[in-house]
Amino acid sequence: MTRLLTLLILGLAAALPATAEIFTEQDLTAARELRERALERDGGFEIVADLTTRIGPRMAGTEADARAVEWAVELLEEIGFDRVWLEPVTFNTWHREFERVTVRAPGVAEQELVTLALGFTPATPDGGIEAELVMFDDLAALEAAEPGDVEGRVVFIRNRMERSRDGSGYGPAVQARSRGPQVASEKGALAMVIRSVGTSNNRFAHTGMTRFDTASRALPAVAVSNPDADQLERIVALGEPVTVHLEVGSEYSEPYTSHNVIAEITGSESPERIVALGAHLDSWDVGTGALDDGAGIAIITEAARLILDLEQQPKRSIQVIYFAAEEIGLLGGRAWAEKHHENFENYQLGAESDFGAGPVYEIAARVADEAWPVIEAIQHELDPLDIALGGREASGGPDFIPSLPHGLAVVDLRQDGTDYFDYHHTENDTLDKIDPQNLAQNAAAYAVLAWLAAQSPIDFGSGPELLEANQ
Amino acid sequence: MTRLLTLLILGLAAALPATAEIFTEQDLTAARELRERALERDGGFEIVADLTTRIGPRMAGTEADARAVEWAVELLEEIGFDRVWLEPVTFNTWHREFERVTVRAPGVAEQELVTLALGFTPATPDGGIEAELVMFDDLAALEAAEPGDVEGRVVFIRNRMERSRDGSGYGPAVQARSRGPQVASEKGALAMVIRSVGTSNNRFAHTGMTRFDTASRALPAVAVSNPDADQLERIVALGEPVTVHLEVGSEYSEPYTSHNVIAEITGSESPERIVALGAHLDSWDVGTGALDDGAGIAIITEAARLILDLEQQPKRSIQVIYFAAEEIGLLGGRAWAEKHHENFENYQLGAESDFGAGPVYEIAARVADEAWPVIEAIQHELDPLDIALGGREASGGPDFIPSLPHGLAVVDLRQDGTDYFDYHHTENDTLDKIDPQNLAQNAAAYAVLAWLAAQSPIDFGSGPELLEANQ
Repeated sequence: MTRLLTLLILGLAAALPATAEIFTEQDLTAARELRERALERDGGFEIVADLTTRIGPRMAGTEADARAVEWAVELLEEIGFDRVWLEPVTFNTWHREFERVTVRAPGVAEQELVTLALGFTPATPDGGIEAELVMFDDLAALEAAEPGDVEGRVVFIRNRMERSRDGSGYGPAVQARSRGPQVASEKGALAMVIRSVGTSNNRFAHTGMTRFDTASRALPAVAVSNPDADQLERIVALGEPVTVHLEVGSEYSEPYTSHNVIAEITGSESPERIVALGAHLDSWDVGTGALDDGAGIAIITEAARLILDLEQQPKRSIQVIYFAAEEIGLLGGRAWAEKHHENFENYQLGAESDFGAGPVYEIAARVADEAWPVIEAIQHELDPLDIALGGREASGGPDFIPSLPHGLAVVDLRQDGTDYFDYHHTENDTLDKIDPQNLAQNAAAYAVLAWLAAQSPIDFGSGPELLEANQ
Repeated sequence: MTRLLTLLILGLAAALPATAEIFTEQDLTAARELRERALERDGGFEIVADLTTRIGPRMAGTEADARAVEWAVELLEEIGFDRVWLEPVTFNTWHREFERVTVRAPGVAEQELVTLALGFTPATPDGGIEAELVMFDDLAALEAAEPGDVEGRVVFIRNRMERSRDGSGYGPAVQARSRGPQVASEKGALAMVIRSVGTSNNRFAHTGMTRFDTASRALPAVAVSNPDADQLERIVALGEPVTVHLEVGSEYSEPYTSHNVIAEITGSESPERIVALGAHLDSWDVGTGALDDGAGIAIITEAARLILDLEQQPKRSIQVIYFAAEEIGLLGGRAWAEKHHENFENYQLGAESDFGAGPVYEIAARVADEAWPVIEAIQHELDPLDIALGGREASGGPDFIPSLPHGLAVVDLRQDGTDYFDYHHTENDTLDKIDPQNLAQNAAAYAVLAWLAAQSPIDFGSGPELLEANQ
């Protein structure tokens, strides 16, 4: 179907009244009950409090990863899901030991900058790396640079992330992190420093993954906190040569097997048909992963718990999936897609909560045309939560992205992320940054979504056809 | 004089109109010119930018301390003060090497806390200290504890600082830091952990001085960031024994001589009579000391520069004093009082800017009764800056406190410190936290104060009599 035709049909569909006849009165009553109960409770705050207190940081492949999986199984069994099981996810691991970056220039005292090594970057040789700094406005400027201006130097890319509700500033800014070190390496740089991909002027560096085409291209790369990036820019602006000394300790380890943890409320009529709610259990190593993604774990678990507490059993099955190793490359999501994609016609919808604890303001969905009125009807029940109807572009969240090429139908419950990148991937991602009321609004939204999706008279169209329809 | 009588006289004085006849029309015109020019400029922002960029952290006794003194002399000479000179301040030094504090409990993964060693606390023995944690609500609870509950343990005091405009929450909260380690040591504790004395929930620990009666009482003591203090409280609340492992590296060094840096605008009529504006040049080692006290350095210097730019020369001399080693015990202030107190009858007023860069909202002064109308007349010229008349209790700022027992007359230009303790003594005290407009308002206030104090027909009464009048 052409995109234009799709839009025309959407336009017509949007003009129709929200179709109360899609759901039974009983199902709608239950949805309203879920919504109201969710708002009366704490949104699963006690879940994220327990996870971040007992486990704290839980980087994929660490001892805390294994403890988090144990914690998850115990929690999900205690809540009373019908089934709880593990699915293995095997991956290479990396861990940070330390980073120490100092800068000096004529007329400038030697100063240490607040930095974090980027994920999977190598250690510096003994004694570190010392070289002149060369600053670029952004990745494009580095790409355009002559190798002679880069060779033997430490590259600094200074571009800033813009703050926005939908987090759309992250994509453009993160290029410097994800591709910059590779480009710098190709031009002969010795190391790389980027401005943190984050919106806060608090003095925390923002870590995250970077990619190298080959291991031989890998070079030490760190992010400096935003105030330190400002400082570096001011030092460069003094016009004298700036020298950077960089020491990073890090270690690659043996392959490790973690697990996606899955729990199911088994459906009464079509148990093989599944509504899948996701979040990821791993975190970066520096904060306690409260917003990223303890909040998501709490939201989907609380949503499912509310449904378990209903008198009715859902017709289709509802699964909550705690993905493993999201931060280091969506590895749990990839393993899940690999294992289940041949059965995607049975998966109704995927929806992952992985954007902190800000309130949901919009529902968007990538579903078959015939299922769009169901999304509209669901939005009608989300409207009292101030959740508007969005469009038909959706990713389902990071861990469902590997499932998109297999045609999984997905829903985004889009959260207000204005402040999310103040904390994301920093030491400062801790429990106190979560507002329980906002968490409850999220749990309400996921409960209503999961319940009505499980009761929908129409399938959402996962499978190869959905992929084609969207291409 | 009794305090009641003083208050009655004050009440009468306050009822009088601001006495325009105290100052000449020419002096008042100049004061207004200073006020307006200050607000058109950047308040000396370029001064604090240059200091924090070129020198960065400048803890007393470090190489950066010496560089800061050189920087100061160069700046003050370049501005064109009539005289610039140094006065030595000698002190013992300490420096931080590292701190690493981990916590664990049954059912709780080992986690590292964000901490900073308190100033002048000793290193832990090789291998660190490992012991059970015992938590107290506040210093009073620790003081009331049986030694048996403390001996051989790591003490944690959890009291929180309250946020307020005038920073009055600091005094009560800081007791746990300044006296807690001594008390814990007396009861046989092995080490001490306090909640940071600060108002932010960002994950920065707050350093500062602590005191031990004798060196043999000294024990390793750290502050944990507020989110980490919350985490520690939650772990304790799980009800299992909590084990802390604490490693601190620190070093005491040989006596070091730094300098108070003083610059003078020499008075035309009574050059021996001095209005003294202060700020301190040293900072803690972890931030760049932008708010504490780069801002003060900028404010007083910009104020004096505005006066230097006037066509008129002040009648009395105006000095700006960059005090050394404030953070480690008001050492520059003590040395200054020691050197100059016999001459305090010539010192008109002391006023230090050392509370960040929030706007001034009130003037208070500790001056002779006959000089109070002058303060009222000065306030009249500060009123357009939204600066109200306060009372007659004032300290002049930390570095003038050692001068109070010698009867120095002092003025407080009280700043809004609502956010000050979000940054104070943390890594997060960086240039971006300063609002140049607020800085300019401060410079305007100090310029008006210094100018009118230099032109006042009445002396402010420094000397032993002032001390007696206030006792």
